[in-house]
Amino acid sequence: MPEKRTGGRSAAVLAQIRTAVEDLVRERGAERVTIPMVAERAGVNPTSIYRRWGDLPTMLNDIATYRLDPTRPLPDTGELRADLVAWAGEIVEHYAKPVNAALLRGGAASAGETESDCLRNRRAEAVVLASRSGAPFAADDIVDLVVAPIIYRVIFLPWTLTDPGLAERCVDRLLATGRAA
Amino acid sequence: MPEKRTGGRSAAVLAQIRTAVEDLVRERGAERVTIPMVAERAGVNPTSIYRRWGDLPTMLNDIATYRLDPTRPLPDTGELRADLVAWAGEIVEHYAKPVNAALLRGGAASAGETESDCLRNRRAEAVVLASRSGAPFAADDIVDLVVAPIIYRVIFLPWTLTDPGLAERCVDRLLATGRAA
Repeated sequence: MPEKRTGGRSAAVLAQIRTAVEDLVRERGAERVTIPMVAERAGVNPTSIYRRWGDLPTMLNDIATYRLDPTRPLPDTGELRADLVAWAGEIVEHYAKPVNAALLRGGAASAGETESDCLRNRRAEAVVLASRSGAPFAADDIVDLVVAPIIYRVIFLPWTLTDPGLAERCVDRLLATGRAA
Repeated sequence: MPEKRTGGRSAAVLAQIRTAVEDLVRERGAERVTIPMVAERAGVNPTSIYRRWGDLPTMLNDIATYRLDPTRPLPDTGELRADLVAWAGEIVEHYAKPVNAALLRGGAASAGETESDCLRNRRAEAVVLASRSGAPFAADDIVDLVVAPIIYRVIFLPWTLTDPGLAERCVDRLLATGRAA
């Protein structure tokens, strides 16, 4: 797990590193970015990066979803289907940006040992949504039926993310499964 | 797209390379394998590897599912649910082996430009399954509801692949969604 530090200077350094990573991935593609390159662009010592993240895929995995702010408010219109569609639509929209998709793909190589912050945050949101009144499904169903198909497309079939009905279709399947159970 | 060659010598070389990659990934982890290392272990010139695949993630992406043989017979018992559960179970079992999961994760970094052979083969199988009599769903539904949740777990939550009910749960959701539609 990356070391978490707090405080003004650390936060500013972290923001510089994130910006450098995002710019370099956008310019060169995730597979051609290196830690010394990020350090130079961010104006930090490569050692600081190695100390915090250990290696490049771990850093990409951690930074991949910085911009999908975990503190943003969840949609809450009082209508469950509308909230789920809006939430799924935010995830689709986030990853329809090539830089965010490239970061997720670059980070996937180092996934699988611990749950990434990114996906833990989405799961925490799924827990909240599944606890709303009248929800006929569990948080795990949201992960399998909404998050997984979207992330699968981000990694393997990104050209299908422009399908305008994707978020609705995932949510309608979730609701249909819940009603049938 | 990697160049596809046929013939006895090429096939033998390809088998040596695949074995070398699988052994090295098992020994060192996908993120510590390099093309020169694979070439040395396989007894081939690194140039042959660069010419065929271009870079390491592309090679991993292509080799990741070699062992889930696309010519194996699909389950065909006459009972749709049983066939789907057996098919989904094969995919889970394949990727529950750490080396296969590591190859998939290592290859994910280079995914997203063209559909990998691996996933194209699974989609072709989904098309056959969706065309069987009485199937109340399309091939895309199989990909979203069965393949995507399994592959998502392989990459991000591999410790959940040992859940013995996973294949059945995915298939039952697929059937429930089809009935509700």
